[in-house]
Amino acid sequence: MSERTETRKPRSNSRARGAKKRDVEVLDAAARVFARRGYADASVQDVADELGILKGSLYHYIKMKEDLLFWLLEAVHKDVEEILEEVAGAESLSPLERLELYVRRQVLYNLDNLERISIYYHDVDSLSEERLTTILARRRTHERFITGLIKEAQDRGEADSSCDARILANCLFATIIWTYRWYKPNGRISRHAIADHCARFVLHGVVGELDAA
Amino acid sequence: MSERTETRKPRSNSRARGAKKRDVEVLDAAARVFARRGYADASVQDVADELGILKGSLYHYIKMKEDLLFWLLEAVHKDVEEILEEVAGAESLSPLERLELYVRRQVLYNLDNLERISIYYHDVDSLSEERLTTILARRRTHERFITGLIKEAQDRGEADSSCDARILANCLFATIIWTYRWYKPNGRISRHAIADHCARFVLHGVVGELDAA
Repeated sequence: MSERTETRKPRSNSRARGAKKRDVEVLDAAARVFARRGYADASVQDVADELGILKGSLYHYIKMKEDLLFWLLEAVHKDVEEILEEVAGAESLSPLERLELYVRRQVLYNLDNLERISIYYHDVDSLSEERLTTILARRRTHERFITGLIKEAQDRGEADSSCDARILANCLFATIIWTYRWYKPNGRISRHAIADHCARFVLHGVVGELDAA
Repeated sequence: MSERTETRKPRSNSRARGAKKRDVEVLDAAARVFARRGYADASVQDVADELGILKGSLYHYIKMKEDLLFWLLEAVHKDVEEILEEVAGAESLSPLERLELYVRRQVLYNLDNLERISIYYHDVDSLSEERLTTILARRRTHERFITGLIKEAQDRGEADSSCDARILANCLFATIIWTYRWYKPNGRISRHAIADHCARFVLHGVVGELDAA
């Protein structure tokens, strides 16, 4: 009995690892197909072709095409929440320094995940109402955290408090998100230089005119 | 003969005015339908229904659905080029003051034309290659003009010249364009307050750290 348990446990661990690896492969293939063909035009058959498996095999993982979109967007939020945890945990940094860290990390993440970010902003509205609500709730938590950092900086007199923190947060997100529309991989400017420029642009924009504060 | 000419001329003017008014009505209806249903899912029949005319009548104006998308995007560029002309003509203003004027005008324009701006950024890639090339050429002229103003400000020592003007221009456009994703008409903050915030955010971002220049 104990022997059976022992032999079963490693097998089930390696099965879990195999399943996780396959999940990643499926989501990567879906991201490539949705980015190339557009989510609306892409089919489950296209994703199966990209994976080199039969459509029937793909239906072991999913019930419908929308599952792939939802899991992709959930995966983006999971990654981004790790960035937010790092920023929240950097207790020795001032609010402005945390914002700077956040912008750098988030820009680099977006540049490294252009397909997923482009699907996120192009196709999030294709989700069913319930799933869209789930995604938007995670986005709101994210937005509240960043708006809170801006307010903290304003309260400490380190940023112009005559500006509305929520509008500033929208301008900050704009700078970060829009990179997916203009960034050219292998262009003349490195990913780190772009993250640096965006962080400086945002920081000066958030700090604003301190005399007016 | 002269009498016929005289009577014909006003008639042809009023016919031209009528045609222009119908063009505007057709594009407005197309914008509403594309924004509501998405360009990919919308049909010529939907636009005809929106106008309350038969599909056959709409085909007097267009050859295919893509004509409506192309004319909409051309109309946006025509409007925006008027803003650029105003900014270029404001010779008493410094480069930074011109950038500020540009951001304010462009943000207000975008907030007043949410449907067209959202179609522009969501569906421009649905154009045929030749038409896409035409639109992108107009966009590049626009981008060069704004990048030129940033470079002028840097050359005059009024903005941090250690930053790449093209990246700053992309951050500037991001701030302006992204408004269509977060602006709520009839929200608690006025259009003019939003334009003001965006202009201040962008100006401080572009000016940057003058000591480092």
